[in-house]
Amino acid sequence: MRLCHGGGVDMNKKILYIKPSAYDTMNSQIKRYLEKYKDRATTVDVVSMPRGPKHLEYLYYQSIAQLEILKAVKKAEQEGYDAAIIGCFYDPGLYTAREICQTMVVTGPGEAAMHIAAVLGGRFSIMVGREKWIPQIYSNVCKYGFAAKLASCRSLGLGVLDFQMDPDRTAKRMREEIRYAIEHDRAEAILLGCTMEFGFFERLQAEFNLPVIDVMLAAFKHAEFLVGLKQKMNWYTSKTITFAPPEAEEIRSWDLPQDYGLGDIWD
Amino acid sequence: MRLCHGGGVDMNKKILYIKPSAYDTMNSQIKRYLEKYKDRATTVDVVSMPRGPKHLEYLYYQSIAQLEILKAVKKAEQEGYDAAIIGCFYDPGLYTAREICQTMVVTGPGEAAMHIAAVLGGRFSIMVGREKWIPQIYSNVCKYGFAAKLASCRSLGLGVLDFQMDPDRTAKRMREEIRYAIEHDRAEAILLGCTMEFGFFERLQAEFNLPVIDVMLAAFKHAEFLVGLKQKMNWYTSKTITFAPPEAEEIRSWDLPQDYGLGDIWD
Amino acid sequence: MRLCHGGGVDMNKKILYIKPSAYDTMNSQIKRYLEKYKDRATTVDVVSMPRGPKHLEYLYYQSIAQLEILKAVKKAEQEGYDAAIIGCFYDPGLYTAREICQTMVVTGPGEAAMHIAAVLGGRFSIMVGREKWIPQIYSNVCKYGFAAKLASCRSLGLGVLDFQMDPDRTAKRMREEIRYAIEHDRAEAILLGCTMEFGFFERLQAEFNLPVIDVMLAAFKHAEFLVGLKQKMNWYTSKTITFAPPEAEEIRSWDLPQDYGLGDIWD
Amino acid sequence: MRLCHGGGVDMNKKILYIKPSAYDTMNSQIKRYLEKYKDRATTVDVVSMPRGPKHLEYLYYQSIAQLEILKAVKKAEQEGYDAAIIGCFYDPGLYTAREICQTMVVTGPGEAAMHIAAVLGGRFSIMVGREKWIPQIYSNVCKYGFAAKLASCRSLGLGVLDFQMDPDRTAKRMREEIRYAIEHDRAEAILLGCTMEFGFFERLQAEFNLPVIDVMLAAFKHAEFLVGLKQKMNWYTSKTITFAPPEAEEIRSWDLPQDYGLGDIWD
Amino acid sequence: MRLCHGGGVDMNKKILYIKPSAYDTMNSQIKRYLEKYKDRATTVDVVSMPRGPKHLEYLYYQSIAQLEILKAVKKAEQEGYDAAIIGCFYDPGLYTAREICQTMVVTGPGEAAMHIAAVLGGRFSIMVGREKWIPQIYSNVCKYGFAAKLASCRSLGLGVLDFQMDPDRTAKRMREEIRYAIEHDRAEAILLGCTMEFGFFERLQAEFNLPVIDVMLAAFKHAEFLVGLKQKMNWYTSKTITFAPPEAEEIRSWDLPQDYGLGDIWD
Amino acid sequence: MRLCHGGGVDMNKKILYIKPSAYDTMNSQIKRYLEKYKDRATTVDVVSMPRGPKHLEYLYYQSIAQLEILKAVKKAEQEGYDAAIIGCFYDPGLYTAREICQTMVVTGPGEAAMHIAAVLGGRFSIMVGREKWIPQIYSNVCKYGFAAKLASCRSLGLGVLDFQMDPDRTAKRMREEIRYAIEHDRAEAILLGCTMEFGFFERLQAEFNLPVIDVMLAAFKHAEFLVGLKQKMNWYTSKTITFAPPEAEEIRSWDLPQDYGLGDIWD
Repeated sequence: MRLCHGGGVDMNKKILYIKPSAYDTMNSQIKRYLEKYKDRATTVDVVSMPRGPKHLEYLYYQSIAQLEILKAVKKAEQEGYDAAIIGCFYDPGLYTAREICQTMVVTGPGEAAMHIAAVLGGRFSIMVGREKWIPQIYSNVCKYGFAAKLASCRSLGLGVLDFQMDPDRTAKRMREEIRYAIEHDRAEAILLGCTMEFGFFERLQAEFNLPVIDVMLAAFKHAEFLVGLKQKMNWYTSKTITFAPPEAEEIRSWDLPQDYGLGDIWD
Repeated sequence: MRLCHGGGVDMNKKILYIKPSAYDTMNSQIKRYLEKYKDRATTVDVVSMPRGPKHLEYLYYQSIAQLEILKAVKKAEQEGYDAAIIGCFYDPGLYTAREICQTMVVTGPGEAAMHIAAVLGGRFSIMVGREKWIPQIYSNVCKYGFAAKLASCRSLGLGVLDFQMDPDRTAKRMREEIRYAIEHDRAEAILLGCTMEFGFFERLQAEFNLPVIDVMLAAFKHAEFLVGLKQKMNWYTSKTITFAPPEAEEIRSWDLPQDYGLGDIWD
Repeated sequence: MRLCHGGGVDMNKKILYIKPSAYDTMNSQIKRYLEKYKDRATTVDVVSMPRGPKHLEYLYYQSIAQLEILKAVKKAEQEGYDAAIIGCFYDPGLYTAREICQTMVVTGPGEAAMHIAAVLGGRFSIMVGREKWIPQIYSNVCKYGFAAKLASCRSLGLGVLDFQMDPDRTAKRMREEIRYAIEHDRAEAILLGCTMEFGFFERLQAEFNLPVIDVMLAAFKHAEFLVGLKQKMNWYTSKTITFAPPEAEEIRSWDLPQDYGLGDIWD
Repeated sequence: MRLCHGGGVDMNKKILYIKPSAYDTMNSQIKRYLEKYKDRATTVDVVSMPRGPKHLEYLYYQSIAQLEILKAVKKAEQEGYDAAIIGCFYDPGLYTAREICQTMVVTGPGEAAMHIAAVLGGRFSIMVGREKWIPQIYSNVCKYGFAAKLASCRSLGLGVLDFQMDPDRTAKRMREEIRYAIEHDRAEAILLGCTMEFGFFERLQAEFNLPVIDVMLAAFKHAEFLVGLKQKMNWYTSKTITFAPPEAEEIRSWDLPQDYGLGDIWD
Repeated sequence: MRLCHGGGVDMNKKILYIKPSAYDTMNSQIKRYLEKYKDRATTVDVVSMPRGPKHLEYLYYQSIAQLEILKAVKKAEQEGYDAAIIGCFYDPGLYTAREICQTMVVTGPGEAAMHIAAVLGGRFSIMVGREKWIPQIYSNVCKYGFAAKLASCRSLGLGVLDFQMDPDRTAKRMREEIRYAIEHDRAEAILLGCTMEFGFFERLQAEFNLPVIDVMLAAFKHAEFLVGLKQKMNWYTSKTITFAPPEAEEIRSWDLPQDYGLGDIWD
Repeated sequence: MRLCHGGGVDMNKKILYIKPSAYDTMNSQIKRYLEKYKDRATTVDVVSMPRGPKHLEYLYYQSIAQLEILKAVKKAEQEGYDAAIIGCFYDPGLYTAREICQTMVVTGPGEAAMHIAAVLGGRFSIMVGREKWIPQIYSNVCKYGFAAKLASCRSLGLGVLDFQMDPDRTAKRMREEIRYAIEHDRAEAILLGCTMEFGFFERLQAEFNLPVIDVMLAAFKHAEFLVGLKQKMNWYTSKTITFAPPEAEEIRSWDLPQDYGLGDIWD
């Protein structure tokens, strides 16, 4: 562990945005979107999954997608990325990804957005897609420590794949529920609780005059922040208990790389 | 609220580190220390208080110091700073400062360091100076949401003004208590729980091989991060309930500026 | 610490009610009000602040007012008062006041009223003035241990200075919200959550047939109670950790008395 | 509900201390003990149970004793007592007693002592007799809201009937455990967690220089306090939900008075 | 403690359902109802109380009934029952019964039904009879650990003795509140929160297409389960701290059997 | 949803024990072990994984194993099993498995053992293999609702594959830590916190005279219990929110069966 900071020099930050669903038609749009908000020294790439579900609204889809997500994460570390973002508000596999990385930063939209909202206002509300999502998201809210800062989870009644299909309908539903959250739940900040709700925050923020967090951007900026902490102070994931990693040798001895198509990421 | 981001351009970040105690002999040392870890586009100034206590170990000292702290914060906003840091691990006046600022970021070492530690490891321990500090710090841990992530608070048996006086003794005590926290409390990250414990983290981190958070730097980097969120996404303190501000007119009508020597910060 | 009880003799209880706002036009009315409910051996005085805000609805106003509040508290101890009441439902500076007093009792309407309500019924609702107040009051509810006993905080939509201006409007709003709290929140007791809501409880209590707590009186009677505990059993604020006091010598060495106009209260 | 206060006149407070165990050899000693600490206008009587267990260390003994306890409480109200104290730190039947009383105050040493300790210091430790007691006492600590204010429960290894048998041994064990609670658990106040631990607090308090709460006295003084609240402000148990009472008519229609020897307390 | 399991042999399970109210007109109906759902090797008997209240809606009624309940429990153990069920959703005397039994299983509808609901769905709602019941039931929800799994308690506005009197009205009210719980409280399972609400679950379950728990049956099946654990693995109530029993000798020495008509259950 | 109970007839219970690690050398031993404790009408099969890790001590191993575990679960439902047990104390994939099953019961040793221990004693301690396990297990303790019932997690310093290798060493370490848990943590029941700790409980239970829960058996008996609830009352997993299942059609449209070798389980 050697320290690599230097007064006021910004090192390059190479960040991979992992879109954990199996279609690549939006990758370049997402890349352009992130680049619009990036810091000068940041470069960002976007990958999606070669196979698997097209959205992760069910626990089962998350379980299936995890194998590819974790492969992408570990590969990113091997390829020299400074950070990988697991681009789903559920943060599927986030802790597992931290466990298997040596020093690369891994973050997710759920954790990142809540950490940001928690310092911007008293309590926040989350605009989820469906009621189905609420138990798992609430469980994450608790896990990250923000149960007392949650004003409400409100459902838009839309699926992940709906948000960008009919943006007017999406914005209309967001407006209705945000207004309700402010007036009845006393929300002071809003989280748009799905990465596919990206691109709406600026207008809504201007209309409602309080922070509206685009969780995709939250994860991206949090990744830049955490990479900065590593580059300047050498602060990165503690590898002692929660995130203590398995041994590559054991993994190889069980033939996991071959059996699960993991390539050479454990060599 | 107009948006001011632009793809990959870093705007200047002008940050004020407010040393909330009434002596200025360490200001330039602190400025140099912060500059060693700053981002390229950041400039940092350090001010200390013109009068008041020399440390804030007691609630009373914090109460007395708050008037000057808040004056410095509000003045910083008027002078165009992007962020002010209240440089005490107790975060005295942090929420009040957020209430009175219009858009300037305010952060503190307690909140910042805990938010960082919470994503770097499972549970963290805080190395405080004296047992007296523990109830107030624990209360902040709860306020910020991290009670379940706290492994322990351990007392070094040293006062704020002792830490830099005899660095060898300080480091020795830190080593003893960090070791105990790791072995008995299962700490996965360490917070050096006073800004005056600055400068020790690199050695300890190398020795113990887990994140050791210098809370002064934590606040500084968190300030840069939050300023970035404002500059790129226009995310800053929600001004609706918790941080809804008083009216300048009311303040003037009560003669507070004259009676409390607040200058023209409320004009 | 010598014991001063004696079978069935009531010692005099000299209590100071500190009105923490800067106008004295209601002081004699408040004194008469308290005297109407006092115990035989009690004498009560009322002081208001020589300067500062006229209400404490904002964190900032509380911060500014604290200096004078604490000066009044410490002076009261020097002058031989048995107890001081910090007359604001937020209890601004309550813990700090306990820290700096040697043996004098200090209490506040928030803590006192909640301790009383907690033994009178299952859950209580608090009638606050504005939504702005709720986060800070809820934070106090938690701090004192009564989160599970809180049925709701309901806002009357009135400011501190409105309550006594138009008593009919105030009573009307109280009735509406109390009714709602009973019917929808299952409140079993009501707190009128601001000292300036004094004088309304008797009528409301008779109408709704459950305890309606006037928080000014709650603090006053709690002060008498705590003074009694000190006089009979020598039970008073523990001075070991949370309320361990600063050293007067240190305070003087930093010129705080001169710089902050504290007079000779630290001599 | 007519209000009965009058400026500074102390009405008589007639209090019954119910010793919930079936021997009367200590009644007069307890009466003298309480009278030593009483207010001028207070009169106190002590009754013990005509039959039943001699201590309540087991849930079963508490269940058996409740019938007589509640009979004594209800009879006390009928006889014009202003308050009844259920003299066991477990507070057996406290909520039930509040349910069946119309306006008489009922209190218990557990609730009373914790409410007092909670305002005297940051956290308190309880000196219980045996480990067996801890789960039930901890459950009460939570019920009353003070889980976060509990430093520890420490067992003296003595039964209820031992405490007054060999006072030197009792005091020795108390000293050992109090010292441990202060040094290791950071206790700032001590509760002697059984009414039969009465009479020890003055010496221990003087030795350890922090509040040592005699829970029998705590209940007694709390009863005086609550009676005062009723006499002056008409604040007493809310009878709406938690403590809504059964109908006397229903009780009589089921022959409970005859079948359970309840006399005419429900006529 | 000798182990009595044997591969795949079902020992007889002799279970006593204790109806804790003083009328026996429904006992045979309840026995037939339970037998409809019993396992092959189970036999069940139903007893009601010889005296006491006819329902336990008040704390007072529960206190009075406990003596007979506990007598019935202890007698059941003496008579060789494998389990006793205390047939009231409040679980009156459940922990006390576990304390006094040596190895016999004791269970209650509250604990049993919540343990079942907790594994069948995310969150459950409880259909109580009256608002009066909610505080005590909520307290049990917390005691058993399921506060985070409770969606709501909803009141049917009916008393214990009403449920079976007018089944159509009862079913209508259940339907209304269950629908509300599902649509507004996001309940995923329903508890019919009184043993006298037995017999309704099948229809409601079919209509609403989610688990509707009949708490009488829940207790019965849980009793069979726990008896099985004892018969096969010798797992039964830990007798060390919480449920450590009083000494029969002490009980006899205080004449409790004679004075309380306990017969020879402590010989 | 048609009801299938019938008075006192035990339907067959066909249970699959899924050993989620990739070796089958212990399958028949485990089958025999379970059969020793089974009910008469139960049949049990044991399967292990065709590929994957040999233990699940790391989050990563659990992520990798989940695909095969869920395949085995879904296949079991298709083959007519009444219940599947996911045989790892972490309960990997338990909630996901409940999501994808239509009516088949799924249970796991963690959830099952804690539900059992929670009714057998006041607080339990868990004997884990390594400190690494504690955060994840503690997280499950909280998820299931038993945080307040946990006395401690104690580490034996042994891995999953060690327990059965050297049973004497394992038993010795268990004894040491159980003794400590009883004497210092006041544990009233013990969980042997890994399915590979099977076979030790009888001796330890006899020695320590309190419940020692073999978590493999706990899951097995809990599965029998839950199957009984389904067979008799039609109570099984609520499929409305938390466990609402994905559409098979969507799964097929994404080619998941082919891409992940899921066979025809989604046809």
